[in-house]
Amino acid sequence: MSLAISPLAPAQSPHLPPLAGVRLGAIEAGLKYRNRRDLLLVALAPGTTVAGVFTKSKTAGAPVVWCRQHLPAGQARGLLVNAGNANVFNGAAGAAAVNRAAGAAAAALACRPTEVFLASTGVIGEPLDAEAIVAAMDSAHHALDSADWAGAAAAIMTTDTFPKLATRTAKIGDTDVTLNGITKGSGMIAPDMATMLGFLFTDACLPAAVLQTLLNRAVARSYNCITVDSDTSTSDSVMLFATGAGDQHAIIEHANDPRLKDFKRALNELCHDLALQVVRDGEGAQKLIEVSVTGATSAAAARTVALSVANSPLVKTAIAGEDANWGRVVMAVGKSGAPADRDLLAIEIGGVTIAQAGRRVDGYDEAPVAEHMRGEAINIHIDLGLGRGRATVWTCDLTHAYIDINADYRS
Amino acid sequence: MSLAISPLAPAQSPHLPPLAGVRLGAIEAGLKYRNRRDLLLVALAPGTTVAGVFTKSKTAGAPVVWCRQHLPAGQARGLLVNAGNANVFNGAAGAAAVNRAAGAAAAALACRPTEVFLASTGVIGEPLDAEAIVAAMDSAHHALDSADWAGAAAAIMTTDTFPKLATRTAKIGDTDVTLNGITKGSGMIAPDMATMLGFLFTDACLPAAVLQTLLNRAVARSYNCITVDSDTSTSDSVMLFATGAGDQHAIIEHANDPRLKDFKRALNELCHDLALQVVRDGEGAQKLIEVSVTGATSAAAARTVALSVANSPLVKTAIAGEDANWGRVVMAVGKSGAPADRDLLAIEIGGVTIAQAGRRVDGYDEAPVAEHMRGEAINIHIDLGLGRGRATVWTCDLTHAYIDINADYRS
Repeated sequence: MSLAISPLAPAQSPHLPPLAGVRLGAIEAGLKYRNRRDLLLVALAPGTTVAGVFTKSKTAGAPVVWCRQHLPAGQARGLLVNAGNANVFNGAAGAAAVNRAAGAAAAALACRPTEVFLASTGVIGEPLDAEAIVAAMDSAHHALDSADWAGAAAAIMTTDTFPKLATRTAKIGDTDVTLNGITKGSGMIAPDMATMLGFLFTDACLPAAVLQTLLNRAVARSYNCITVDSDTSTSDSVMLFATGAGDQHAIIEHANDPRLKDFKRALNELCHDLALQVVRDGEGAQKLIEVSVTGATSAAAARTVALSVANSPLVKTAIAGEDANWGRVVMAVGKSGAPADRDLLAIEIGGVTIAQAGRRVDGYDEAPVAEHMRGEAINIHIDLGLGRGRATVWTCDLTHAYIDINADYRS
Repeated sequence: MSLAISPLAPAQSPHLPPLAGVRLGAIEAGLKYRNRRDLLLVALAPGTTVAGVFTKSKTAGAPVVWCRQHLPAGQARGLLVNAGNANVFNGAAGAAAVNRAAGAAAAALACRPTEVFLASTGVIGEPLDAEAIVAAMDSAHHALDSADWAGAAAAIMTTDTFPKLATRTAKIGDTDVTLNGITKGSGMIAPDMATMLGFLFTDACLPAAVLQTLLNRAVARSYNCITVDSDTSTSDSVMLFATGAGDQHAIIEHANDPRLKDFKRALNELCHDLALQVVRDGEGAQKLIEVSVTGATSAAAARTVALSVANSPLVKTAIAGEDANWGRVVMAVGKSGAPADRDLLAIEIGGVTIAQAGRRVDGYDEAPVAEHMRGEAINIHIDLGLGRGRATVWTCDLTHAYIDINADYRS
């Protein structure tokens, strides 16, 4: 199926600069798709450190199991990603395919297999043809290049309608460092996390433990605050690689080193940018929806309420229909299970207060809200009036196109 | 919006016999709809006992609050139901409307207001016009009749495409008793419970406490095992009324009295029949889906897994597309949060074993599964291989018609 580019896609894709210590090779391996690139090999400089956050699914794929196993060593020399087959639920054959692919990549990159990280995305339950990947390795290795970030982002897409890239610069002390990221994801998107792959790279020199702390925090506010359809994937992975091949900066040993402040800002922005691109490419999305909750008893309770609203099919179809049906927001708050008091609840849409103290405000005029609903970016704010917990999540509307895409994905 | 009758509707609606002690008056009160009945008054014989199960929503409607308040007395003389406006999130005005309507019904029925139970279904957050209900009360009272069960079932509909009725007979000792039920619900259907109203009546003579125990058990396996869209309503109510006006039977004082065995069977069947009619009328439903889970660590864990599958938009759209995409079942099991071991998981669709021990079975032939997917009733069975917990839930597919209905419900 060929899909039209999402109407919410950014007007133009950013240009990513080369990043010292990273070379990318994206090729057509013919694993599932025809006439498009579907295999990405990334070569990383010696000394590259790595951090990762992975799906909490009980049926995680074989590549996720592999990455979890080798993450504690904190060292990476390669990354291998294929699109079209998730290599999930293939039993021992799935693990064997991972071993075979990692071995071939390690031979090409002259490193240990355990230094190669893997991700696969696509159909679940069909054996992955590892031999096809092995056969394509030479070609991928020859394609290695420091410039082709756009090709890399395109090669990891499945139902995505546009490649997702972002870049930031930051200072560590007086030294400039660069952060580049690519991501994919469009459906089966829900925290924790999504059919969502994210690969972030920096030329900074940071210990793996520091990277892991920074990545956990950045993902908690970005990738783990988006949902398209509440369906959590078996393959979700976000990894952050630090090559240390950029300009030399002060030695950093702890995540709370004050010299990391600007780097943290840049990393958070990078993750937020990429995560929102995923929502903007939500299957069938016509509207980008931000749901913010304040006044909850805790941040976790606020997130529960926000996700209950963001995942409600009735809220999402109302928004698809540009219908200011705020009663469904009341419903979704009520069903979330988090503490809420009907008679303290306040709701705003598009900055217009619709309800306060458990009822519609006197003289409520739907016209400005209806106007807001016709726009592309929808803002729903809920104040629970109970405490200081707050959270913001992002989602998209539920449209006919979601059903078109998903009623026949495999064909 | 006028909706075509669901293709899953029963071929014919059952005829319900009169039930001693119950008279029904269904009329056009013009509350929201035009040219259809939208108000139901039920008169119950003196001595009628009542039990109820209500939504767990934190934003429950004013009628639910009223019913919960008066249920402990266990006595009912009237039931008043309106369709088109849920009387939810109207603050003090909502409670005042309930008081006013109960008072008018009590005057008509010559009973106390606290003996009148109320339910409202429809749009949330718009003030209910209690005066219109009061003005219609005479007309409803004059319409009271022991025969018009079909009219009563029709008057409580919202987006339902067919009225939902069921009847059973049972023996208590040697005495025949009758059970009649009507229900409504089509969207915003999820346990606990649904925009789902169910009113069950029997001419048996049973204490309220006994009724409550039997109703809790029956609802747990029926109304609380169905889901259309995972959205739980603010108004869900199932009530069971026992008029004691039928033939005299042995005095029953305890829910575990062995003479209740056949009555329990009949009540469970009645609830199951009505609950499945709700799924058969799921908004946009083209297929009735049964998800059964065995081998879970507990019954609760089994239900969590079954609901995770039944609520997955990706599973439901795959079924809408008649696509045997069982990998999405793997995903939904994995995301449920309940204990599961990927390498013990077995999946059957339509009685065909697709996967065992965490992978697709050798020589899997999709043809019979694809044939099953083209049918109207879809069966998914999951064995977790961990313990003895089991559960079965029912849902429907997610289709374009769901979006059509819900993207513009209020207009």
